[in-house]
Amino acid sequence: VKQTIQTLADLVSGEVEGNPAIEIHGVGTLQNASPGQISFLANPIYRKQLAATRASAVILHRSNRDECKTTAIVVVDPHVAYAKIAAALFPQDSFEPGIAPSAVVSASATIAASASIQANSVIGNDVVIGDYVVVGPNCTIERAVKIGSHTRLVANVTICHGSELGSRVLVHPGAVIGSDGFGLANDRGVWIKVPQLGKVRIGDDVEIGANTSIDRGALEDTLIENGVKLDNQIQIAHNVQVGAHTAIAGCVGVSGSTKIGRHCAIGGGVGISGHLEIADKVTVTGMSLVSKSIPESGVYSGSVPAMQADQWRRNFARVRKLDEMFRKLATLEKQVRQLLERK
Amino acid sequence: VKQTIQTLADLVSGEVEGNPAIEIHGVGTLQNASPGQISFLANPIYRKQLAATRASAVILHRSNRDECKTTAIVVVDPHVAYAKIAAALFPQDSFEPGIAPSAVVSASATIAASASIQANSVIGNDVVIGDYVVVGPNCTIERAVKIGSHTRLVANVTICHGSELGSRVLVHPGAVIGSDGFGLANDRGVWIKVPQLGKVRIGDDVEIGANTSIDRGALEDTLIENGVKLDNQIQIAHNVQVGAHTAIAGCVGVSGSTKIGRHCAIGGGVGISGHLEIADKVTVTGMSLVSKSIPESGVYSGSVPAMQADQWRRNFARVRKLDEMFRKLATLEKQVRQLLERK
Amino acid sequence: VKQTIQTLADLVSGEVEGNPAIEIHGVGTLQNASPGQISFLANPIYRKQLAATRASAVILHRSNRDECKTTAIVVVDPHVAYAKIAAALFPQDSFEPGIAPSAVVSASATIAASASIQANSVIGNDVVIGDYVVVGPNCTIERAVKIGSHTRLVANVTICHGSELGSRVLVHPGAVIGSDGFGLANDRGVWIKVPQLGKVRIGDDVEIGANTSIDRGALEDTLIENGVKLDNQIQIAHNVQVGAHTAIAGCVGVSGSTKIGRHCAIGGGVGISGHLEIADKVTVTGMSLVSKSIPESGVYSGSVPAMQADQWRRNFARVRKLDEMFRKLATLEKQVRQLLERK
Repeated sequence: VKQTIQTLADLVSGEVEGNPAIEIHGVGTLQNASPGQISFLANPIYRKQLAATRASAVILHRSNRDECKTTAIVVVDPHVAYAKIAAALFPQDSFEPGIAPSAVVSASATIAASASIQANSVIGNDVVIGDYVVVGPNCTIERAVKIGSHTRLVANVTICHGSELGSRVLVHPGAVIGSDGFGLANDRGVWIKVPQLGKVRIGDDVEIGANTSIDRGALEDTLIENGVKLDNQIQIAHNVQVGAHTAIAGCVGVSGSTKIGRHCAIGGGVGISGHLEIADKVTVTGMSLVSKSIPESGVYSGSVPAMQADQWRRNFARVRKLDEMFRKLATLEKQVRQLLERK
Repeated sequence: VKQTIQTLADLVSGEVEGNPAIEIHGVGTLQNASPGQISFLANPIYRKQLAATRASAVILHRSNRDECKTTAIVVVDPHVAYAKIAAALFPQDSFEPGIAPSAVVSASATIAASASIQANSVIGNDVVIGDYVVVGPNCTIERAVKIGSHTRLVANVTICHGSELGSRVLVHPGAVIGSDGFGLANDRGVWIKVPQLGKVRIGDDVEIGANTSIDRGALEDTLIENGVKLDNQIQIAHNVQVGAHTAIAGCVGVSGSTKIGRHCAIGGGVGISGHLEIADKVTVTGMSLVSKSIPESGVYSGSVPAMQADQWRRNFARVRKLDEMFRKLATLEKQVRQLLERK
Repeated sequence: VKQTIQTLADLVSGEVEGNPAIEIHGVGTLQNASPGQISFLANPIYRKQLAATRASAVILHRSNRDECKTTAIVVVDPHVAYAKIAAALFPQDSFEPGIAPSAVVSASATIAASASIQANSVIGNDVVIGDYVVVGPNCTIERAVKIGSHTRLVANVTICHGSELGSRVLVHPGAVIGSDGFGLANDRGVWIKVPQLGKVRIGDDVEIGANTSIDRGALEDTLIENGVKLDNQIQIAHNVQVGAHTAIAGCVGVSGSTKIGRHCAIGGGVGISGHLEIADKVTVTGMSLVSKSIPESGVYSGSVPAMQADQWRRNFARVRKLDEMFRKLATLEKQVRQLLERK
């Protein structure tokens, strides 16, 4: 949808410098935008592209205003303003309300009239689906699931029995919510299943990535609080709690009963052991292992960057000798101290 | 279903101490159970909650009997006993036999009359499905698959052609069994596909987690033996063998042709290289890389726990200097020896 | 299909030594092949099995000819020749053209007459599907997707709106192509979604493994070039580019906007940070973290092999002391130099 620069600036409480009447119909990067598109500068590494951009307008911070030759929308946080303006220019797909003829919906399910239940989806007994919910193609919703308003399951999503999703939750394809936790008891060498009797409860404004899985609780529930953002290919085990407004990047695994605080940022590929407590506002860098509770906010790291294989082998071989090196060093220190004292 | 404490104790050969006639209708943690529920003490960290629990009964070991103020079921292994009692109180969902009208089933498939083939599932030619099997919604079973009795595919499961599953196998949503292995030959820079002609064979009493994938063999078969338990988001490559009663936690990747022994425990996020042999009763701690065969049972580790990022950077920078440090240390040792001998 | 050894040799420009008229109907390993099957020797570790094989013929390199007692097909690259011969003996399944009655296909989709749209698949508005394409059971194809000829989606695959796939692409079950990238802006503690407006473009002859996910671009497109091979459980983030003929093993995660060169080989479980550039012909060993750009081809490594847990704990404890050790070593060197100079 076309909008004037003034309209877009008003959306984000920005100041227009230049021509507020220009109509914008799209977005682009500083480097590749064409006239009629709006761009933005949030990451300083792209600052040098500002002078040459062909965008009709640029969203930027006051400190970059002078380098911009085109109309600007000056804001405090250009990335946030861009997100809001792009959402205004490209509204989400809307879906016709109603139940597709090929969907299989239990007679005991309660489906809001404004909801869209799409082709070949399957909805079980006693499910409750709120206003404007979209259940995309080939989704499966088992019995007694509750889904709040404006939530969307894109396609091929599975929601297991009893799970509860809040409002404005977005679940990407292949995600599985409410599968059994990995609860096993070892009976003289043979694993027997511990029934998984809790459920999954998900707050409002949560996003769940493609092929991510969230297990139901063993006795009590697995909890994903409001505003949590989960990327793709994440595994959340039974009875985990993820605090509000925490973001977790792709390929992370969180083991059972761990509690992650609010406003945390967990990097890609991180593993978090079970039964830990992670404080609020903790950042963990990518591919680290968190094996102990983290009681204080801060940045935590434990990943080993790759280097040329020869160099790596040479140095890594010494890790196996570290304890020996440490002891040799102590001996040397003692000997040198004696030598120095003799004089 | 309600059961008396005596009935539950008899199930697990436990001794009742207290009132055997109380009826139990549910389960709960020591901390949160309410009257009418049974709880258990297996992990000693919860021992201090025993005195104050409101559970009507507690499953515990003789050694904790005295601290328990309520009726107790005394057993040798409280975790195993709890698993059996919870299963008795909460029987699995039962499913009506028959083929849902929306399921698409080949005329050449053989489906037991007691099996439940649910909405929008698709079953190919020459498939054989045993007694009391449940094929949940939106599952796809390709041609010539064989499934033993009492096996359940929860929903959205894909079983590729020729795969064989035993009895009492439980497959969670999004799992893929029998996809092509990653077999490639490099023809002067261009990868060409090596046909994957083996299949996947899965024993009895196996559990396969959400979004886990098990590839078919290249020439011979990929094998998952009886009683193996696989968590979510696991990748099992072609021609892997997993020995009976081995448990593998989430996000593990096992490369091609590796044989894992029986009764192993593989921690979350572990990677195992190809063409290895891992002995029976091997434990690998989470996020480790196994790059060589492990001929002896024991505990193996190679993961690096995260620490504060400043501390990590300071120490990790030295890993790149380890070989240099090692050589400097040797020189110093020699020099100090000379100095000591001079006297 | 049965073929004579001569016919198979002609396929791969091989020389027959022995009886060219024998008919071959199958393939097997050197160890387990039976008469009527052909085997191959590519990996030298199997050389000792050559003398005793019961295969009717063996594909091998000239240098191993003398040890082979049966008919041989002598070629330059036995692995490549085997791949081609196996493909000839075991042609891929063929599928009847047409749209299954249970498939739900938009009236505005363009489906080639030779394409096979299978049971319970769902195809959205304005989709274009080329000749001989196979859309397997329970697949979802959102609006405006374009799929080139001879491409196959095996089953349970999701292709999100606007994605473009080339010809002869093979997509395994559970894969998700075109899901939203993980684009978030932090608005005073609350994450807001950055609309993901790019798409995914995939070249020809690409293979995409089970449960792999490829996110759409934020502004520009995510690109997978010709001949790329992706194993299972891989995560490709928004705006990543993967160069032609690169192979990526299972469980790899590639963060946003990273460009991987052509002819690279990325080992299983590798993590690659965002906004990097990886040169052509780079190999990264399994479970490594790539956190900086790699401007030169070569082999890169950073993974820590597991060892016995006791040994590991003893040595790893010293990593936390590395910086201290380094400083002590420098002090000792200085002191010893002084002691040596005193004489």
